[in-house]
Amino acid sequence: MQFWFEFASTYSYPAALRVEALARQHGVPLKWNAFLLGPLFQAQGWNDSPFNLFPVQGRYMWRDLERICGDLALPFRRPSQFPRHSVLAARVACRFADEPWLPAFVRAVFQANFADDQDISQPAVLERCLAPLDLPGNTVLEEAQSPASKAALRAQTEQAVALGIFGAPSFIVDNELFWGNDPLEAALAWTRAPSPVKKTY
Amino acid sequence: MQFWFEFASTYSYPAALRVEALARQHGVPLKWNAFLLGPLFQAQGWNDSPFNLFPVQGRYMWRDLERICGDLALPFRRPSQFPRHSVLAARVACRFADEPWLPAFVRAVFQANFADDQDISQPAVLERCLAPLDLPGNTVLEEAQSPASKAALRAQTEQAVALGIFGAPSFIVDNELFWGNDPLEAALAWTRAPSPVKKTY
Repeated sequence: MQFWFEFASTYSYPAALRVEALARQHGVPLKWNAFLLGPLFQAQGWNDSPFNLFPVQGRYMWRDLERICGDLALPFRRPSQFPRHSVLAARVACRFADEPWLPAFVRAVFQANFADDQDISQPAVLERCLAPLDLPGNTVLEEAQSPASKAALRAQTEQAVALGIFGAPSFIVDNELFWGNDPLEAALAWTRAPSPVKKTY
Repeated sequence: MQFWFEFASTYSYPAALRVEALARQHGVPLKWNAFLLGPLFQAQGWNDSPFNLFPVQGRYMWRDLERICGDLALPFRRPSQFPRHSVLAARVACRFADEPWLPAFVRAVFQANFADDQDISQPAVLERCLAPLDLPGNTVLEEAQSPASKAALRAQTEQAVALGIFGAPSFIVDNELFWGNDPLEAALAWTRAPSPVKKTY
């Protein structure tokens, strides 16, 4: 299963924190795919998160997220800045996607943003996420900002668009797209028992 | 639990077809509240369904609905016109909300729209939904178009806005709003075990 996430995305937080354990329970291999929502929103004519552009939806989302985190016993504090610039963190996650420490790094960044209200656009914050993993933050961040790493994240974001992705989190199983935190269980169920319903759309 | 639905809304279809049995299983009294999404969308500057305005989301929605209906063994055929004009059906549902036949009528209209591709804006189609319930379609539709019935639906739509509703289906339990078909189970769980998380937003 492919897990497509964006570090600034609110519903990506609970998804990122629970996806690995659930995938393991289902015996489903997991691919972590960071991407950026900004270019996708801009292509729709949005210059901000839809949760800011449409305040009624935004108000609902924050309460819904609060409830979801409560149910999962995940700490949650509304970030004082939303959405936060996530490009540096996404470059790290894209460049080092296959490293065994990647899932722990992703979770640490999400918690920094949505539990500890830290500015994840700052290299110092990301270095603090890398330190407990015994990683040389400085070196990792430098490598993540190489031209090749920047190009890799751009390509991955373009791939998201090509796959029909328009929001985060998204899950892909056998060319089936599932959007949002709620459908994670439906995506995992699909790995075992795809619906017999012919794909028309 | 309040169930807020719109006859033209795609995700309201599976919700309307499963809500009564689930609520009964949970011993939760159910209030059926028809409303119109059009005025809410217009207030956001949208002159059409967001699924038409944002085609990538629309494409996803049709496949997602196809999958959901497959899982629930609900017949589904994409309506040849979307969204359909739902004001007459909504006036009936609002005027006769407390009648014992109301849930069966609501289900019949949703099936006409999303399983049989019938134009639910037509009185003849609604009369065919009323006939199996032994109701005089002509009289019911006439009463639904009285000035009082029209005003009642307008007031109910305004109440939806006042409650923070912005889409359909929506469920309300103890001032908590749940939006979409997926969160129906979460709304029902809330009736027994509200989250201890303080409402901040």
